[in-house]
Amino acid sequence: MTEFIPPGTRWIDLPPGFPMKRGGTLPRARIAYETWGRRNAADDNSILILTGLSPDAHAAASEADPAPGWWETMVGPGKAIDTDRWHVVCVNSLGSCKGSSGPASLDPATGRPYRLAFPDVSIEDVADTAAHVVRALGIGRLACVVGNSMGGMVALALLARHPGIARSHINVSGAAKALPFSIAIRSLQREAIRLDPNWNGGDYDEEHYPESGMRMARKLGVITYRSALEWDGRFGRVRLDSDRRDDEDPFGLEFEVESYLEAHARRFVRNFDPNCYLYLSRCMDWFDIGESCGGTTAEGLARIRVERALAIGVHTDILFPLQQQEEIADGLRAGGSAATFLPLESPQGHDAFLVDFARFSPAIGGFLAGL
Amino acid sequence: MTEFIPPGTRWIDLPPGFPMKRGGTLPRARIAYETWGRRNAADDNSILILTGLSPDAHAAASEADPAPGWWETMVGPGKAIDTDRWHVVCVNSLGSCKGSSGPASLDPATGRPYRLAFPDVSIEDVADTAAHVVRALGIGRLACVVGNSMGGMVALALLARHPGIARSHINVSGAAKALPFSIAIRSLQREAIRLDPNWNGGDYDEEHYPESGMRMARKLGVITYRSALEWDGRFGRVRLDSDRRDDEDPFGLEFEVESYLEAHARRFVRNFDPNCYLYLSRCMDWFDIGESCGGTTAEGLARIRVERALAIGVHTDILFPLQQQEEIADGLRAGGSAATFLPLESPQGHDAFLVDFARFSPAIGGFLAGL
Repeated sequence: MTEFIPPGTRWIDLPPGFPMKRGGTLPRARIAYETWGRRNAADDNSILILTGLSPDAHAAASEADPAPGWWETMVGPGKAIDTDRWHVVCVNSLGSCKGSSGPASLDPATGRPYRLAFPDVSIEDVADTAAHVVRALGIGRLACVVGNSMGGMVALALLARHPGIARSHINVSGAAKALPFSIAIRSLQREAIRLDPNWNGGDYDEEHYPESGMRMARKLGVITYRSALEWDGRFGRVRLDSDRRDDEDPFGLEFEVESYLEAHARRFVRNFDPNCYLYLSRCMDWFDIGESCGGTTAEGLARIRVERALAIGVHTDILFPLQQQEEIADGLRAGGSAATFLPLESPQGHDAFLVDFARFSPAIGGFLAGL
Repeated sequence: MTEFIPPGTRWIDLPPGFPMKRGGTLPRARIAYETWGRRNAADDNSILILTGLSPDAHAAASEADPAPGWWETMVGPGKAIDTDRWHVVCVNSLGSCKGSSGPASLDPATGRPYRLAFPDVSIEDVADTAAHVVRALGIGRLACVVGNSMGGMVALALLARHPGIARSHINVSGAAKALPFSIAIRSLQREAIRLDPNWNGGDYDEEHYPESGMRMARKLGVITYRSALEWDGRFGRVRLDSDRRDDEDPFGLEFEVESYLEAHARRFVRNFDPNCYLYLSRCMDWFDIGESCGGTTAEGLARIRVERALAIGVHTDILFPLQQQEEIADGLRAGGSAATFLPLESPQGHDAFLVDFARFSPAIGGFLAGL
């Protein structure tokens, strides 16, 4: 079973028998994390970063791992999340295959991968295990919790379930609940994986691997991560050169946009465990901060108390649409937090926070500078 | 090989050796059509309806086939397309499996279905064969050509390639060219079908049928035919009752929206031939009225001459987005046609013209009443 663990990874063990929201416990599990910068004496400069579905804890280069991280342009000395000032912690989500325990990890009871025997993972569980890391590191109170995409859901669950854990919050292209369009997309991605005969009820190996299903799932992901507007300008109707086409295949790749999807899919399919993908995809569908708190979404958000909050999104995001970030800001404000909604005019869709630093860096850097 | 032909269908034979745009000819082929109302003595009351990818020629009930048609609310006595006034013709597209010749038809040379041996079908071929039907019926000049979705592409090709064939045009949620987001979606739908081992290079039968691939393709279609806005109101986060869920399947259907997609897919997969689906899907990607005329899209549109035109769309359409209907109206106007762009505030996405008659009937009926 494949795990893909960056070399700078450190771990915090979870207490044995860690309880899971939907039932079951984790016998022996751990959460992967990395840190940058130094915690100050006042213990008021720690920032927690919670990621989207697929990233590992390696948000940025470090001494232990000088390879660029997935948020390299955002995190580092003098950058928007300035590691000269802030002590930054990034955790890999429970259920992932990038260092934290999940379906691809070895079950200590059997010595073999858990696969589907891993307990159901919910957003709340990802939040609870991240909270455990914060406490285990001895951090009294976070200056800020930053959550992107799925991590934005995790951040809300963390703040609701662990009152006082953070003074402030930045929600980046996140949501307080999953809506049916996104549920439909994710359901179809999971179906593509499950339909692949090589998925085999979760019991695959490197040789018999659900590559086609993962490729379909990833392509559909990329379609919903970017935007039609961006692609109109970037690809238009440009064809592949004839030497990049397979003339024998009447339905083979013909347009640049098809080749772009194929290249994205190829990079992904063998670098993320299919069962972990299924688990983390499903946990987003389940999430509603309202259901989580036994009330409406607005009531769930209003339970959260932070001093300041920022909810950012972009108007071309079809997966976590802009009104969901507005809902977060409105809900936090109703609960008494000073919350700002910041819509950005980025053409790059849901993934804009990973690429459109011209817009995102000043937004995030400005908020943190004002703390 | 499955064909699905409504009982009121009539046919026009194409002349043997009908030339195809991308090469090859059709040895012996025919186009299915239905008609409603009566052609008047002045021969100035005929309307041609060109359909989206999947509909047959049975747009409305008739004496020969009293079953409701796919545009029943729009077409009939006293309706927006008033068959008391208009002589209405609807053709089934070349390449379809609903009566017209296509990959599912028998190849007269072998007595077996063409499958992938059917020549490449382009939007221009669909237009040319529809033009042949119009002429074969003895219609001198159409009062109007109405094209929906893919049919909107076909209508533009028809008008460009057969000058003078129609006095006016209504383009409903159509496009002058395929854009990369839509190409990406359709490419993925085709990949889902082709990945199904039962597709088998196009050589399947009823017993070994690419049902999973067709189900995936259709679900992805339905996701892009409707809109997130509609689904938020219609499904929200409503779960299936426990008796409609399979507790044994950890990734089975849980939300109403998933069940809705499943029901749509089930109705479709055995009612449309997979190879025909691949052919018609691909022909949309190929279409650009500019490439078709050897110039830019605007130049292609400006070649078209009609007295009046209406381009309608809805702001929630992600597959044929509103700016594409605006582009059509602008382009036709630049060519000297009196063209109006009519954006409608429908929540129902690309499929709105099939369901939101409160908005579409007055728009279409008003235009036709003014002819």
